[in-house]
Amino acid sequence: MRQSKLFTKTLKTAPKDETSTNARLLIRAGYVDKLMAGVYTYLPLGLRVLNKIKNIVREEMDAIGGQEILMPALMPKEPWAITGRWVKPGDEVMFQFKGRGDKEFGLGWTHEEIVTPLVKKFIRSAKDLPITVYQIQDKFRNEPRAKSGLLRGREFSMKDLYSFHADEASLEKYYDLMNKVYLKIFKRCGLDALVTEASGGAFSQYSHEYQVLTPAGEDTIYYCVTCHYAQNKEISIYKENDPCPKCSGIIKEGRAIEVGNIFKLKTKFTQAFNLTFADDDQKQKLAVMGCYGIGPSRVLGAVVEVRHDEAGLTWPREIAPFLTQLTTIGGKDDKINAKINKQAEELYQILQKQGIEVLYDDRIGLSAGEKLAEADLLGLPYRVIISAKTIEKNAVELKKRTAKTAESLTAKQLINLLAKDIE
Amino acid sequence: MRQSKLFTKTLKTAPKDETSTNARLLIRAGYVDKLMAGVYTYLPLGLRVLNKIKNIVREEMDAIGGQEILMPALMPKEPWAITGRWVKPGDEVMFQFKGRGDKEFGLGWTHEEIVTPLVKKFIRSAKDLPITVYQIQDKFRNEPRAKSGLLRGREFSMKDLYSFHADEASLEKYYDLMNKVYLKIFKRCGLDALVTEASGGAFSQYSHEYQVLTPAGEDTIYYCVTCHYAQNKEISIYKENDPCPKCSGIIKEGRAIEVGNIFKLKTKFTQAFNLTFADDDQKQKLAVMGCYGIGPSRVLGAVVEVRHDEAGLTWPREIAPFLTQLTTIGGKDDKINAKINKQAEELYQILQKQGIEVLYDDRIGLSAGEKLAEADLLGLPYRVIISAKTIEKNAVELKKRTAKTAESLTAKQLINLLAKDIE
Repeated sequence: MRQSKLFTKTLKTAPKDETSTNARLLIRAGYVDKLMAGVYTYLPLGLRVLNKIKNIVREEMDAIGGQEILMPALMPKEPWAITGRWVKPGDEVMFQFKGRGDKEFGLGWTHEEIVTPLVKKFIRSAKDLPITVYQIQDKFRNEPRAKSGLLRGREFSMKDLYSFHADEASLEKYYDLMNKVYLKIFKRCGLDALVTEASGGAFSQYSHEYQVLTPAGEDTIYYCVTCHYAQNKEISIYKENDPCPKCSGIIKEGRAIEVGNIFKLKTKFTQAFNLTFADDDQKQKLAVMGCYGIGPSRVLGAVVEVRHDEAGLTWPREIAPFLTQLTTIGGKDDKINAKINKQAEELYQILQKQGIEVLYDDRIGLSAGEKLAEADLLGLPYRVIISAKTIEKNAVELKKRTAKTAESLTAKQLINLLAKDIE
Repeated sequence: MRQSKLFTKTLKTAPKDETSTNARLLIRAGYVDKLMAGVYTYLPLGLRVLNKIKNIVREEMDAIGGQEILMPALMPKEPWAITGRWVKPGDEVMFQFKGRGDKEFGLGWTHEEIVTPLVKKFIRSAKDLPITVYQIQDKFRNEPRAKSGLLRGREFSMKDLYSFHADEASLEKYYDLMNKVYLKIFKRCGLDALVTEASGGAFSQYSHEYQVLTPAGEDTIYYCVTCHYAQNKEISIYKENDPCPKCSGIIKEGRAIEVGNIFKLKTKFTQAFNLTFADDDQKQKLAVMGCYGIGPSRVLGAVVEVRHDEAGLTWPREIAPFLTQLTTIGGKDDKINAKINKQAEELYQILQKQGIEVLYDDRIGLSAGEKLAEADLLGLPYRVIISAKTIEKNAVELKKRTAKTAESLTAKQLINLLAKDIE
């Protein structure tokens, strides 16, 4: 994409009403815009990152047989009345309101009440199970403190997968598989997530949260510095400097962001909606259920919190809006400027043909300092510079976002290197 | 995809509470599920169609320089109070409600009040214009009569593009371009849409609607049977059998579904939000604006209304969930059944490798009649059949959904034919 065509602009300073690092940086860099507390617009660069995160999640869910569907955000009261959640947590969590004819609606903050009756329609016998369905969709919460940018939204994106099984052994097996897949997803997004034991509710001893350590986190966890065993403070029996129960390490306290969770719901919802199936012995049995959430918008915010520096954003390769920026730095000599632009245009075309995603800073009239500072703020993994100096050397300069210095390469070397990086 | 893995099932009869053809067929075929009037879940097959429509729209918007963003559905009252639309149409159209601290929210049914202040942040001078931004996102309406399946939803998907220009000439030029692109989009989706003059509001003589003729339509239009000039009844000065003002044809009355519209808003919203720019003469001028909507979920419903037959759905190629179904029809001879399955498995792998989207009906224990009736209901463009008869002939059978008879081909001929169709 040509940067001259991008309608957004970067800001010299962050907006005063934002306190979170993720929102301050993302707004300054033109990735998102704030509509109100906890509600953001994704601008072209931010939407590219969000969609890359969603697509990683989608790929990994599809790879383990998840079937994608899309459930509504607008919901009638009735299924929530059945489980009691219309009243508790009720409007503490859910936006609830009336439409025409005083019909009562709520906005979805989770979808057990919708997916369970839905799946029930298609289950007759044990051979219909397991069923694993998921969606990637926007959810809503009547949030009391929406001050953490993308980390705690009133409107936010969510992948929620629900699995339905004939027995607990099948649920356990799938739950363990999902745990592995979740760690893979966070790794692809550039996050080290700790599998953290959390409250399991009435039906299970534990659920598991995926927590990313950062002072910006709203959760407190106790974790082993050696083996990374971790518990959420809410349920933890440990305190700082306790010995780890799993290894010879010691337990530390830390702030963390929850970027995902998995939960064995067992028969909590299948009982409420009488989701039964004919087992091989012809008796009707309740299906058992698990749910598995990842918040792509929260992942985006968490990546910014743990990966930025004084100059700006630093995207991991797989979710960067573009792999590389291509920047021309002109001078006062029109003849040399023409050569710079010609080489940059040619390189832009070649890189695009190779399938390499390039943000081409073709803007004129900006100083080298302005362009490079803005490139640091945008935080793409690579930056290719074409200037009078590189033209003279018959080369281009390549700088990794997190490296101190640039290296000089021929155009061919550059193309090979970038092509290799996206393989 | 293997049909044995698909969690949805087709229904022998349509649900009693649905009166619209599109919802009855889509529910029977397992494409959508109804949560409540005007609110549907997209099941795996339905979501594939919806996403294909969205991607056609996205491709065509990107091709004319549209920049994709994603605005929120949850909105504060304030910008709507500025334009007066918080009160009129107010809750006649918008779901409005209170959150914590009695803060007032609404759910987006359109986005002028959000996009205008957003774009204003990035416009300084004439050289920042034109700007064209769009989103593909779910919208909400406090709908009084949601009885037409996907045609009139309380929650529905929408592509809304907003263009901002330095002068009316630039708006006019873009408006005409968009008109051409819209006709291309509907054609790709398998719809013949009539460009129909409709009310232009206070600022323009006409807006233009894209109307698809069908008795299921909720609009009434007058149109020329010869040159397809059309007006919405709401503003039309014509009546049935009038001479066409544009050609020698005659005017007919017809029911139609509005699948898109384009509207010159001019300064209606830029005035409300004081979206000005420094023109070349250094004077501050109001930008002029256009908006351009297409409802992908309504397009989906409209396609079903105009393209179905007694046996079920008949998808146009570009938006079919899969290009072809691959169906095995077994018999009582286990040895021949094994051959059938072996050939089908091989063909399935080859077609997938070629990038041909296949729904492989690998289910066993169903009669030929059941499988073929269900294939008709699902409505994929092609169906490939492997049976004892085809094995004997060392061939496969290919039937177009809308053809009366199947033709016999070698596997190689089949692969070439299908590969050619997706080019």
